[in-house]
Amino acid sequence: MCVEDVHFRREWHPAESIGHRCLARGLSDIAAMGGEPLACFLSLDLPSNLPQRWVNDFMSGLLRLARLRKTPLSGGDTSSAPKIVADIIVLGTVPAGQTLLRSKARPGDRIYVTGELGGSAATLKRLHSGKKIRSSDNSRHFYPTPRLEVGLWLRKKNLVTSMIDISDGLSVDLAHICEESKVDGVLRLEALPVAKTADLALALHGGEDYELLFSAPKSAAVPRRIAGVSITEIGEIRRKTSQKGTVKTIDSAGRLKPLRPAGWEHFKTD
Amino acid sequence: MCVEDVHFRREWHPAESIGHRCLARGLSDIAAMGGEPLACFLSLDLPSNLPQRWVNDFMSGLLRLARLRKTPLSGGDTSSAPKIVADIIVLGTVPAGQTLLRSKARPGDRIYVTGELGGSAATLKRLHSGKKIRSSDNSRHFYPTPRLEVGLWLRKKNLVTSMIDISDGLSVDLAHICEESKVDGVLRLEALPVAKTADLALALHGGEDYELLFSAPKSAAVPRRIAGVSITEIGEIRRKTSQKGTVKTIDSAGRLKPLRPAGWEHFKTD
Repeated sequence: MCVEDVHFRREWHPAESIGHRCLARGLSDIAAMGGEPLACFLSLDLPSNLPQRWVNDFMSGLLRLARLRKTPLSGGDTSSAPKIVADIIVLGTVPAGQTLLRSKARPGDRIYVTGELGGSAATLKRLHSGKKIRSSDNSRHFYPTPRLEVGLWLRKKNLVTSMIDISDGLSVDLAHICEESKVDGVLRLEALPVAKTADLALALHGGEDYELLFSAPKSAAVPRRIAGVSITEIGEIRRKTSQKGTVKTIDSAGRLKPLRPAGWEHFKTD
Repeated sequence: MCVEDVHFRREWHPAESIGHRCLARGLSDIAAMGGEPLACFLSLDLPSNLPQRWVNDFMSGLLRLARLRKTPLSGGDTSSAPKIVADIIVLGTVPAGQTLLRSKARPGDRIYVTGELGGSAATLKRLHSGKKIRSSDNSRHFYPTPRLEVGLWLRKKNLVTSMIDISDGLSVDLAHICEESKVDGVLRLEALPVAKTADLALALHGGEDYELLFSAPKSAAVPRRIAGVSITEIGEIRRKTSQKGTVKTIDSAGRLKPLRPAGWEHFKTD
């Protein structure tokens, strides 16, 4: 769901970007399971005084990505409402039993991430501070690329033990893997692929990068680049040391420190 | 989509009823195409101060109907938002080429409706007037029954030329059939199955009855009752007389009068 003033602001985000981000969010979940998208369904709540132009631009942003990803818009609904709400459902397929889950990370596995982290949150921070933004310079935020080819490649090569997309932030999404796999995750801070515009905190906790975070056995031959996207090893899975799966950081001197998951979490930030 | 203060009010509708109505709305669309439901997906926007009890009751109303109709909840999303929004997507199946559409009504066809009309709107009117309501006495409004068995029977018997469910009101939904079939629809007012609690205006324009409205050739043997639900002949399809498909009423003396569609239409009533 993309909710006005929760996931976007009309004065910050062009309508085309909101339409694109709405579908990208759903496609990214399919990518994280190693799936291929099949169809999408859109429900739109719109204030009755919203200009038709806004709706046209929103739809053009969404439909451009839908065409590109061969994910036809196949149904949905419209309603009036005080705020814009766009709900996207994406259906995808994966051969039975091959879905990549969050629950199969094992101690000794290495942790990997696609692309760069923190770029989307860096743009959001700049928007919050009132600075002018050009959407063409901030495409990671306005027009994120769901990593469908990477997810599909990893599933077909059968290299991966767990996978998730980074929608809420690395610290939060790695914690999801740790909790569901009942393991600890240790991040090497100096290894993180921090986006040029971001800093370490944004790379750790900033959401909406829609990169893939996955674990693979130490012995797995994970390439440095898949489908044109860089792959970086950023840490390892360890045996669980406390009640709940936890995320730790390790510095170059080998010192471990607990990392409190602090990304975007619904119902906790507002 | 079910939007707080548009489709329901928290002080009027028990949470179980809202959950039931949300899914019933989607199932009714499947019924109107002669389909069988397969799976549903739910996205929920919830204010962060909403009691957990409300969510539990909402889900229990929705899941009870999902179990009854063998339509497993198969995915979805949650988000925080200023108002409750529940978006349901129901997937259904129908053999290729057999979907019942709105566009195949032909002059000479008879018009039929299931059950009774206006009951749901009568309850809503009473709620608006501030009268106390017991949901057990007003189940057509609070717990509508999607007419899945009737839709399936009609599709399998191949009797029907067009079908729609009455979610917005008879006058509006018949106009949809007329426009898409490029015909006129003539309603015999004295034939309408008006609910005991309703009047003629509510039967013509009141929404959310979720009965099926369909056309069938004059020669078709449409029974008086299908799957325990009464079927009433309420008019006929005629050749189009104006630019747009229109709905007319005919009284017992044979006088035709145009009927302005005046039911629930999103973006027009608020």
